[in-house]
Amino acid sequence: MKEPRKDNNVSTSEKKDAATDLQSLGEGLYKQMEQGEFPWIKIPSRSTENIYYSPELRQYILGDRKVKRSARNIRHIRPFTQLVWTAFFAHKLSTQRKTSTLRDVYYSAQAYEMSFKDQSESDNIITDLETAIGSAREDFNIFPEERSAVFGDITIEYTVPGYEGRQMNLTSHPDGLMVGPALTYSEFVKTSADKVIAIEKGGLFTRFIEENVHKKHNALLVLTAGQAPRATRHFIHRLNKELELPVYILTDGDPWGMHIAMVIISGSANAAHVRDLTTPDAKWSGVWASDIVDYKLPSVPLTEIDIKRLHELQRDPRYKDDLWQREIKIFMKIRKKAEQEAFSRYGLTYIVDEYLPSKLEETK
Amino acid sequence: MKEPRKDNNVSTSEKKDAATDLQSLGEGLYKQMEQGEFPWIKIPSRSTENIYYSPELRQYILGDRKVKRSARNIRHIRPFTQLVWTAFFAHKLSTQRKTSTLRDVYYSAQAYEMSFKDQSESDNIITDLETAIGSAREDFNIFPEERSAVFGDITIEYTVPGYEGRQMNLTSHPDGLMVGPALTYSEFVKTSADKVIAIEKGGLFTRFIEENVHKKHNALLVLTAGQAPRATRHFIHRLNKELELPVYILTDGDPWGMHIAMVIISGSANAAHVRDLTTPDAKWSGVWASDIVDYKLPSVPLTEIDIKRLHELQRDPRYKDDLWQREIKIFMKIRKKAEQEAFSRYGLTYIVDEYLPSKLEETK
Repeated sequence: MKEPRKDNNVSTSEKKDAATDLQSLGEGLYKQMEQGEFPWIKIPSRSTENIYYSPELRQYILGDRKVKRSARNIRHIRPFTQLVWTAFFAHKLSTQRKTSTLRDVYYSAQAYEMSFKDQSESDNIITDLETAIGSAREDFNIFPEERSAVFGDITIEYTVPGYEGRQMNLTSHPDGLMVGPALTYSEFVKTSADKVIAIEKGGLFTRFIEENVHKKHNALLVLTAGQAPRATRHFIHRLNKELELPVYILTDGDPWGMHIAMVIISGSANAAHVRDLTTPDAKWSGVWASDIVDYKLPSVPLTEIDIKRLHELQRDPRYKDDLWQREIKIFMKIRKKAEQEAFSRYGLTYIVDEYLPSKLEETK
Repeated sequence: MKEPRKDNNVSTSEKKDAATDLQSLGEGLYKQMEQGEFPWIKIPSRSTENIYYSPELRQYILGDRKVKRSARNIRHIRPFTQLVWTAFFAHKLSTQRKTSTLRDVYYSAQAYEMSFKDQSESDNIITDLETAIGSAREDFNIFPEERSAVFGDITIEYTVPGYEGRQMNLTSHPDGLMVGPALTYSEFVKTSADKVIAIEKGGLFTRFIEENVHKKHNALLVLTAGQAPRATRHFIHRLNKELELPVYILTDGDPWGMHIAMVIISGSANAAHVRDLTTPDAKWSGVWASDIVDYKLPSVPLTEIDIKRLHELQRDPRYKDDLWQREIKIFMKIRKKAEQEAFSRYGLTYIVDEYLPSKLEETK
């Protein structure tokens, strides 16, 4: 059984950092006021001109440009106050160990007579706060609404209230265990797995469990349920970083499937200010455009929207590597797409017995 | 601890029936051929003129009209053959204990050189098969793609391969356990719960777990994740029927939220040919239009589409009861809607501490 590297226990240490960072942010403001200054906060700019793709980190990052929000400036007072309230509320969530959602924070503000004109204004301030303290909002207990799932031989230990110290093996429930706050904050105890396989669709996730892919391939299975929620991307990141497990991603064979894989691998420009949501070494194992040809898969024609999307991806710096460029070109040439389920034309277990082993080998 | 009524163990008996019914269907066809007849199948008609709302069953049902598909009729040969193949494939799934999805069946047909022009054609034939044998497709192992979750003090026993006889308490994982084939086919062993609370949104589901609603209210919590998948509706039906637990449903306060509740309660016209997906005694406990007024909830104006939808619901026979008609009228009068999270304006736990107990009492 493999045990996590002790020196790299991301989850709890990171979480402590967010609460501590929020505390420091507040202390900084008090200090400024004690010194007779109008309080201010300096944060990296998130404007498009300050977003760069970093080939080293293999994700988007923010440049050196900073913006200063000061209570001295009349135009800043509103966003400055909103940011300070959000930091206060996030700190409260963290210390009381309650979780929340973006929408919940928007409505919660009204309990404090803090005004946001709509949810997009409060979402934006929460992103400012992430940027200011350099932590993802999950680290200060603001979670996505969406849920996905995981299954496989890993034993985790809970840290959430009421479950502290309890252990759970993630093969316990054969429909899969939801990835919510409890799994996000859990410690990894041990695993016999030597890889992670992320799967776009619920039906295939169940097929993989029924066909014992977790045993045959020593794999942890993660359901992304379409675009993986941030908590799930962070969970995959942790499996890769703490347990050093390689990650393979299986999606539909179309530009949208490619991008589901890419967001797990390299993240999005919107998240240029956060780390630990990406898994740059993860592999997109299929369904490739070339698989549609090689496996003679049942397919449907690409739509105009699909083709427009392929052109966008072709110019996207995250897609510069040979594999991506090659597959984009093949998609454009064959003008077809195929779903994961298309392999069922060769029988229900073909994808597990033939396609999967061959692709795991090919993308190793 | 409450134990399920032994005389009413729906899950396993129903599942056995589906496999047996498929077998009988096949035997009937052989018999017809041995007697020198062209084989035929008679099924209740699903045309709109044959769909009625049954006030006794409180769901849509099919009338007496039947259609006969016969190999003798040249126009019937194609759908007849498709139906027989689908019955064969469903029987294979059931006996091999593999699960599948609608899309998977469409592609699987190609492995047998059985042709469907598109997935909607195969979906339609699967519905014919449901109608022919009177079982939901989940009973012959065709499951929805979507997944939702459950949490609370109930111990279940698995019947799926590899897990037979293993028990699981559904408080074991505080993010919730997915409702897939394994939970659908499980036996209920015991529970301390005296009610079920179904919740539309993931964030609130987590809030309820964190605030110990399952303990404070002896409740099983079910996440519907928007419109509840059929497997989840069946699971709620079983909790209500086998364990005699009353069911309360909490949705957003808008016509779409109302309809999420209604589909759990009375099902849809599309499912007029199946039973055991509805829970007619379940209550829609909120968020009502009148709650928006009474609790002075933050709200947004109804859109034209919302209002059009309200007019449709007003004429829908499932909505004829006083409560629904009254709330539809109030929605139309105030022209506002509110989300579940709107209660956070009174603090994060107001919905749990104040609103929920009051509504459980009111809709008892």
